[in-house]
Amino acid sequence: MLKNLNYKFNDEELLELALTHKSAKKGTNNERLEFLGDAVMDLIVAEYLCDKFRSTQEGDLSKLRAALVNETSFAKLAKKLDLGDNIIISAAEENNNGREKNSILSDAFEALMGAIYLEAGLEKVRKIAIDLLESEYKDISLKALAKDYKTTLQEITQAKFGITPEYRLIDSKGPDHKKEFKMGIFLNDKLYGEAVGKSKKDGEQKAAKIAIDLIEKGAK
Amino acid sequence: MLKNLNYKFNDEELLELALTHKSAKKGTNNERLEFLGDAVMDLIVAEYLCDKFRSTQEGDLSKLRAALVNETSFAKLAKKLDLGDNIIISAAEENNNGREKNSILSDAFEALMGAIYLEAGLEKVRKIAIDLLESEYKDISLKALAKDYKTTLQEITQAKFGITPEYRLIDSKGPDHKKEFKMGIFLNDKLYGEAVGKSKKDGEQKAAKIAIDLIEKGAK
Repeated sequence: MLKNLNYKFNDEELLELALTHKSAKKGTNNERLEFLGDAVMDLIVAEYLCDKFRSTQEGDLSKLRAALVNETSFAKLAKKLDLGDNIIISAAEENNNGREKNSILSDAFEALMGAIYLEAGLEKVRKIAIDLLESEYKDISLKALAKDYKTTLQEITQAKFGITPEYRLIDSKGPDHKKEFKMGIFLNDKLYGEAVGKSKKDGEQKAAKIAIDLIEKGAK
Repeated sequence: MLKNLNYKFNDEELLELALTHKSAKKGTNNERLEFLGDAVMDLIVAEYLCDKFRSTQEGDLSKLRAALVNETSFAKLAKKLDLGDNIIISAAEENNNGREKNSILSDAFEALMGAIYLEAGLEKVRKIAIDLLESEYKDISLKALAKDYKTTLQEITQAKFGITPEYRLIDSKGPDHKKEFKMGIFLNDKLYGEAVGKSKKDGEQKAAKIAIDLIEKGAK
């Protein structure tokens, strides 16, 4: 029985499969369940957000979902369930801190949700997933989830390109009490976005938002 | 009542909303339902494929789903349902051949599936969607769906970059009865992939597959 998981599997082998990382080389692993669970979570969170935010436009719903449905977020939920101690991985992966890796934890979480879906259906897995999300995110709102664009951008650029964005002051002007700062974001020394803010931090956040939009547009 | 749609809405306003394109400027449009329907279709097709191909690995399941769940595919299903004649669009969009556009048709199809899901649940929309897919794709298999990499690549590059890939013969060698052709794919004159085949067409297909993998990797 997994810690904090409000569900007992009838089929213990299905649970084991969901927790089996491909490094374990057991013939089968959790990748198919992860494929299914990924789609299950996308739907559950989409419906949850549509229901919670009745008049929010699609663009903002997408942003909210992206803040909840991602590797970092699912790794947090996996830790709540203690998946790290229960996943089945190779000795090599074990020595490589595999039980702590966000990618492995997130995949196992998705596989687990896929397995519950298969065994118990959408209603059951929805309840479990939403309870977990609501316990992790006390305030599910655009303001709370989407305000920190710098963090979001760093997660994206790390995942996509393996690099951390660099912020540079491009220009500042105006009198001291009304100074404005133009901040630029550089990825591999290439300018990805710039914006003017009332403080350096404000400018960085605005520039990060522009860069996120750019990358997301490019990835469409 | 929509042609070939095996479903009658209780809530006629919900159906109307699903068919309302944002160009109609009616205050509300089908974008939220499309957001939901997109996730519904992803899950339905993921589960269908997991069930149909019990021992196929996740990578191939993803490819199969990508061949079924995309704008071109959904636009075909939309045409089966005669959505083009029933969508609500602005006069300007009408004059711009909006009723024929894959993007508008595909969005309306997703919104329609989202609306049926809301009103009747997953089981019902699953039956409708799978019946439609199976009537459109007589042979749902990796061989039938994924073999034409050139078409797939063209769809991807058109959607992503608005350009058509160009194939060029880079090299050929060997005796006439055993000639080999090295074909390259160029996007905006940049080499994206090359491969050797027993014919030009064979080389093109192989190069297209490499380019697809590259682009998909980059988009991850």
